[in-house]
Amino acid sequence: MRTSVTVRVPGSTSNLGAGFDCVGAAVARWLRVTVRRTGGGGAAVTLARGGTLAGLETPPERDLVYRGFAAACGRAGRDVPAGLEIVAESDIPVARGLGSSAAAAVAGAAAAAALFELDLDPDALTAVGAALEGHPDNVAPAVRGGATLAVAGPDGLVVTALAVHPALAFVFAVPEFRVETARARAVLPASLPHATAVQAAARSAALLEGLAQAEPRLLAVGLDDVLHVPFRRALVPGYDDVTAAARAAGAYGATLSGSGPTLVAVAPAGRAAAVGEAMVHAWRRRGIVASSFHVPRPAGGYEIL
Amino acid sequence: MRTSVTVRVPGSTSNLGAGFDCVGAAVARWLRVTVRRTGGGGAAVTLARGGTLAGLETPPERDLVYRGFAAACGRAGRDVPAGLEIVAESDIPVARGLGSSAAAAVAGAAAAAALFELDLDPDALTAVGAALEGHPDNVAPAVRGGATLAVAGPDGLVVTALAVHPALAFVFAVPEFRVETARARAVLPASLPHATAVQAAARSAALLEGLAQAEPRLLAVGLDDVLHVPFRRALVPGYDDVTAAARAAGAYGATLSGSGPTLVAVAPAGRAAAVGEAMVHAWRRRGIVASSFHVPRPAGGYEIL
Repeated sequence: MRTSVTVRVPGSTSNLGAGFDCVGAAVARWLRVTVRRTGGGGAAVTLARGGTLAGLETPPERDLVYRGFAAACGRAGRDVPAGLEIVAESDIPVARGLGSSAAAAVAGAAAAAALFELDLDPDALTAVGAALEGHPDNVAPAVRGGATLAVAGPDGLVVTALAVHPALAFVFAVPEFRVETARARAVLPASLPHATAVQAAARSAALLEGLAQAEPRLLAVGLDDVLHVPFRRALVPGYDDVTAAARAAGAYGATLSGSGPTLVAVAPAGRAAAVGEAMVHAWRRRGIVASSFHVPRPAGGYEIL
Repeated sequence: MRTSVTVRVPGSTSNLGAGFDCVGAAVARWLRVTVRRTGGGGAAVTLARGGTLAGLETPPERDLVYRGFAAACGRAGRDVPAGLEIVAESDIPVARGLGSSAAAAVAGAAAAAALFELDLDPDALTAVGAALEGHPDNVAPAVRGGATLAVAGPDGLVVTALAVHPALAFVFAVPEFRVETARARAVLPASLPHATAVQAAARSAALLEGLAQAEPRLLAVGLDDVLHVPFRRALVPGYDDVTAAARAAGAYGATLSGSGPTLVAVAPAGRAAAVGEAMVHAWRRRGIVASSFHVPRPAGGYEIL
């Protein structure tokens, strides 16, 4: 049995456009976690953090990496051994809507599976991560890579890969402020007009076809969500300006990444850099510091290194 | 300029599962319409009906074939000539949720386009039909054939073809009673819980992936609508029994075709006949006469013969 394992897990964008709560894509920013069994007594777990995780103060046993590790052990009917050393280093922005929590839960569970040779296939790993972290649309792409649809079926979560046309790029603009997930949840209304729900169903279908075909009109309507953006954009100062700037620079559409504050645009690959600059510039005009990056395609899923 | 044209237009199923108001498929039952310019004076239009249309008593100038014809002329800035003879014959069940109205509107518009060489591409023809008939998810497959997504965009209707895996068949069970469309509209609630709208968006995405991949779990959840079936199934006596019988006979799922009363199941091609029989039998046990048919794939769109 190995005594040490290193795993890397991508970040992810979720709630993609009209794919609220179900469509996500892996983003090539990575959390890298090493778990080592020291075999010694002493503390149950020690945790060292680096990169974007530096400065986090969650106690080790409440950190999502450790909880993912423990959840995978629990599912396999194993006790969590004492004497774990965890080293976690990340370049996924934290609490910005880029799936850092989902990556942590997946990293812990995947590390446990590798260390103890647990029988956890991607579906089981996704189920463990989603039960713990609450966002299957982040967990699914973190596990499998690519773009994914995760939908609740009668026998549990159903996850499938979604086609993304190679001419498309994803552009992210990440501002320096945060939006608390709890607050983002609280602004959603209890009910919606029936006609809005009908629109939501049509638009999520349009999103899938738009991503697969790189069809501008389908992407424009499919990225224009009616389920959460109308309520959450007030939590992201500059939302209208930045998304308009993205479109003006050539993006097919732009929306919240996760529940924000990061904004994601889908653009022709050749316009990705210009779209990112336009988004950062639009925020700067409002006195908000932001940075951008773009990826030519969704990243691959987690890997044992 | 031709003086006579014959066009055939397929029936269609719409509101397919979670694709309420947006996903439809052409069904190989046909409306065949001949329009002849007599050049004479007298009545503006005469109309002879056959097949499933026999017994309809709508006056010719209010029939959807004639109104489709007039709408296409109007869009092209032309007067409708006096002295039209229309002969319409159909094997599409009428007022059963199989798109007979949409076929009529498309037939009239397509006949006018052919007769007067109007510049009406498929998008324009769909727009004319949908404006007149009100169901773009029926009109789009009647025009283009196949399975389609029709979604309202900022600049009008966006229509795209949807993939349907060749291993799938569509099974229809058509009962002898009718459901009035107006009544079917009236039972829809004004609002829905936010969580239901979220479900609706995820399920319509699942439907598209299920149809493309013939994936059983995606089809099961994608055919299980939350936007209209929960409210309309009370208008279709036997709904629960017949859809359960379809699933028990091997269908991936079953739901209302249009707003009913026809029920449509999606099944493995090899189970289609058995599924149809099971559906008819389930209705018979409730004293309701029904007939079934199945098609191995969506039909082609309208044709000028």
